[in-house]
Amino acid sequence: MSLLDAALHASMDLSQASRPGQVMLVGAGPGDPELLTVKAARLIGSASIVMHDALVGRGVLELIPRGAHCIDVGKRSGAHKMSQAGIIELLIRLARAGHDVLRLKGGDPYVFGRGGEEAQALAAAGVPFSVVPGISAAQGAAASAGIPLTHRAHAAQWLCVTGHLRDGAEGTHTLDLDWAQLARPNQTLVVYMGVAALALICERLIAHGQAPHTPAALVENATRPEQRCVAGTLATLRTLAREHAVKAPALLVIGTVVALQPLLARAMALAAH
Amino acid sequence: MSLLDAALHASMDLSQASRPGQVMLVGAGPGDPELLTVKAARLIGSASIVMHDALVGRGVLELIPRGAHCIDVGKRSGAHKMSQAGIIELLIRLARAGHDVLRLKGGDPYVFGRGGEEAQALAAAGVPFSVVPGISAAQGAAASAGIPLTHRAHAAQWLCVTGHLRDGAEGTHTLDLDWAQLARPNQTLVVYMGVAALALICERLIAHGQAPHTPAALVENATRPEQRCVAGTLATLRTLAREHAVKAPALLVIGTVVALQPLLARAMALAAH
Repeated sequence: MSLLDAALHASMDLSQASRPGQVMLVGAGPGDPELLTVKAARLIGSASIVMHDALVGRGVLELIPRGAHCIDVGKRSGAHKMSQAGIIELLIRLARAGHDVLRLKGGDPYVFGRGGEEAQALAAAGVPFSVVPGISAAQGAAASAGIPLTHRAHAAQWLCVTGHLRDGAEGTHTLDLDWAQLARPNQTLVVYMGVAALALICERLIAHGQAPHTPAALVENATRPEQRCVAGTLATLRTLAREHAVKAPALLVIGTVVALQPLLARAMALAAH
Repeated sequence: MSLLDAALHASMDLSQASRPGQVMLVGAGPGDPELLTVKAARLIGSASIVMHDALVGRGVLELIPRGAHCIDVGKRSGAHKMSQAGIIELLIRLARAGHDVLRLKGGDPYVFGRGGEEAQALAAAGVPFSVVPGISAAQGAAASAGIPLTHRAHAAQWLCVTGHLRDGAEGTHTLDLDWAQLARPNQTLVVYMGVAALALICERLIAHGQAPHTPAALVENATRPEQRCVAGTLATLRTLAREHAVKAPALLVIGTVVALQPLLARAMALAAH
């Protein structure tokens, strides 16, 4: 509880209530506030307590009513503001004190980001909750950069993984992925948090038989005004990413669907929206 | 053009315009109109021509203005109302005649459903277009049935495939899937259109090493008032589906995350939303 700010402490009664509040796990989408669902926008606009992550877009946060308590539990790399256990504990305490809490998560609550873990902990504690899905980063990047996730001529399936590096032996970093499964044709592979591990991912996929000329792209700040898409191949993307100084968070998309990106982006640039 | 109804012909000028219209490929989400994005709801509410698929929810269609031209190009099993080529040809014709067309697709335009093919054809024809992502059926089912798609203790990745059967030799039906890739731990497998092939899918996964007691569920009419979730295992789901008479379209979800469903559903049932 030490991380709860003083204002919250002073103004909120955290004693046990006769009727528990409920938690709404709400997807904030990829960044553009117009890509919130109608339901998410309605709930955010009438929330009294919001707990949000670092990846929630600024335009989305601006929809939170001025009088609401807004708790930033965002974790920026290296500087954990609140532990996952602390977040769950606070959600349960607030709900047991009778408060309704809107738990706002970037993208979709059930696609990475530990929404499943929070739902499980709430359910185990007997706290009523609901889940509002959100447009995932993959979908936002696909739509706004011009990369279909499936396509009959390119990809009959799509696979989502994270490129989060783990500490390996002797100061190295490793990725716990099944490379043989990832390096296959007729599939779109989407890697969340793929910037830091980009070189490793491209190398391993090639080593496991994926053609070096397989199209691949990085989409930075998907759906936000500052969005950038850098497209190349497994062989060239590392160099292109360095030249363009692509920064995390960015989404890595691999597969022949990426070859459509320049054509689609040109036609999209002609549209009014 | 033979499939365009007479009213459309009579009231719309299909001669070449000096300035082309544009096509908006818009995701209608999983069914619940509140799960439309804010942008999709805004565009639908001001559309003058809408071309929609069969899987678009009734509540979503009710948002189309009364004065708008509404073209149902939906394909129900066995009765193709308009071919994919016909749909693309009509989109291009309307745009070239200066009309803006809202192409409304169930779920997300770039997740199955041939949105990628339509985008490619429009781009190749020089028709400006934009894409508005939608909540996919997988996300809708996950949120409303209580099945996280990823979870640190269960699934580090999720894979989306279709269970659409193809005609095989001598009247049999086959599924062109890489079973070894699908039958693996630490993954959530989502199968679109998985009802007809359910027995085949469960058998093949077990034959390829997936434990028969792997949790699996069917979610019918996800996010709609009549939603049902039937949960069991790879060994039992076929029988359960028959007992409960689960009908297509339904989403098949396989993986240990499904084991959380009863717990999460109980806590969700206590929530007001």
